Amino acid sequence: MRLTPAQLEHYRTYGFAAVENLFDPEELERLRAHADRDLATESPRRVLEAGSSLVRATHGAHLATAFFGDLVRLSRLIDIAEQVVGEDVYIHQFKINAKSALGGEMWEWHQDSYFWAREDGMHGSGAMNVVVHLDEVTEFNGPLMLIPGSHRVGEIPASDVPGQHGGDAWLQTVSAQLKYTLGQDVLRQLVDRHGIESIKGPAGTTLLFDPAVVHGSPGNLSPYDRRLLIMSYNRSDNPLADVANPRPEFIAARDFTPLRRLDRDEVPNHPLGAPPAAVTEPGR
Amino acid sequence: MRLTPAQLEHYRTYGFAAVENLFDPEELERLRAHADRDLATESPRRVLEAGSSLVRATHGAHLATAFFGDLVRLSRLIDIAEQVVGEDVYIHQFKINAKSALGGEMWEWHQDSYFWAREDGMHGSGAMNVVVHLDEVTEFNGPLMLIPGSHRVGEIPASDVPGQHGGDAWLQTVSAQLKYTLGQDVLRQLVDRHGIESIKGPAGTTLLFDPAVVHGSPGNLSPYDRRLLIMSYNRSDNPLADVANPRPEFIAARDFTPLRRLDRDEVPNHPLGAPPAAVTEPGR
Repeated sequence: MRLTPAQLEHYRTYGFAAVENLFDPEELERLRAHADRDLATESPRRVLEAGSSLVRATHGAHLATAFFGDLVRLSRLIDIAEQVVGEDVYIHQFKINAKSALGGEMWEWHQDSYFWAREDGMHGSGAMNVVVHLDEVTEFNGPLMLIPGSHRVGEIPASDVPGQHGGDAWLQTVSAQLKYTLGQDVLRQLVDRHGIESIKGPAGTTLLFDPAVVHGSPGNLSPYDRRLLIMSYNRSDNPLADVANPRPEFIAARDFTPLRRLDRDEVPNHPLGAPPAAVTEPGR
Repeated sequence: MRLTPAQLEHYRTYGFAAVENLFDPEELERLRAHADRDLATESPRRVLEAGSSLVRATHGAHLATAFFGDLVRLSRLIDIAEQVVGEDVYIHQFKINAKSALGGEMWEWHQDSYFWAREDGMHGSGAMNVVVHLDEVTEFNGPLMLIPGSHRVGEIPASDVPGQHGGDAWLQTVSAQLKYTLGQDVLRQLVDRHGIESIKGPAGTTLLFDPAVVHGSPGNLSPYDRRLLIMSYNRSDNPLADVANPRPEFIAARDFTPLRRLDRDEVPNHPLGAPPAAVTEPGR
């Protein structure tokens, strides 16, 4: 599985590319079932919407379950990741976003790379996000929105808005009011020049995007959840530097061992809730 | 100025109709200037976004300024209102919604008629909303969303969510967390049957909708404000009954005197901030 030359050129030019039919209907059903299970399981990896009992996201499910631990090792995903960023990749972050019906909140505009540099010590480029939409995405249920080409602007200064939240410091980096906020002036310059694009499509639509692309998403006004997975691949030779207060391993992994491909390129059919076979095994 | 038969049939069937070119560019410029002035003026009529200094809306500008007091008397607006709801109308509500850049919050799904029955004692049907978009509306800046045909369902039971807010009781009826909330089950039934439509178009796009249509809007993720006016016309022979704690006159007017048309069917060119000529004059 490789991107077409046109898809790759779109990615280089605009910082993203959308791919359909990367998963078949049965595979999508497995992804939804395991995502639901993880979202429903109480855990320190799970984040709620502000002032709500609705689940916003889980983090690091690939370290906690055999299913997602194997998923990131699918050949088709590693093939694409290596085609885009180069050989030997590992998972920097793994998120399941719930974007719950009627209550899933916005994500403010941001560059992932800005957070990763400051919070995690990732200073080079060598990462790519793979977003798998588990439900149909429409204009009504909080589609991801991108400023095309904004990855070529480089690092865009953001305001540090500290101390808005109680609880653990890392929560400020994953809540609806983000720790680093892009100002209205810089966003106007970007939007005037590049516009905004939203990613819509049937369940399974898979979006690849550069972590330097400015992106966000509105709330979900539809009465159905709009779930997605985000797998952030990074090249193993672009590891994280030491930082003063590293975020937990389930938010920003520090095991840079290259992933080994699964023998079969098929979304695994593990039973729900199976524990990871061996999280610390070399090659995971 | 009258709706075409097709527009009127669309309104009867789906509960709304969109009209373009009701205002020329110079008139729109006047509307924007006066709307900005009202939004920028501190007043009890002005509501802020929750936990923010951003202005969410103003209410009752037609009672407080000559400009908006005259605007609602434009022949073209009264003509359309009378064509739809019948002769002799007055203004029940007048709102200017700011939907500020990057911070303008959602409006939850609701029926205006549900609020008006409970809060204001409006028990018959005889009202129509006229929404004038002062800026281009896109999928990115919080377009109004409607469930087409939902006005024919009648009154849809909503949950009463009291006591979420401090401050005046009427604030609960105009904030991002509304006093009466439609549940997920009933919204799923409605959306499965009728879908959702969003109203997008150039500045000046004017939406007419039945107050029983279920509607809402997402937040504004764009870096530009998306302003609109909502003028709620009601037939004078469909007046408000007495209620225990009536909302202020600037939220729900109790002067049911029919409006007299302006002599000239042109958006007035009053200076900014001119006081109303005579708010209490009969015929206003």
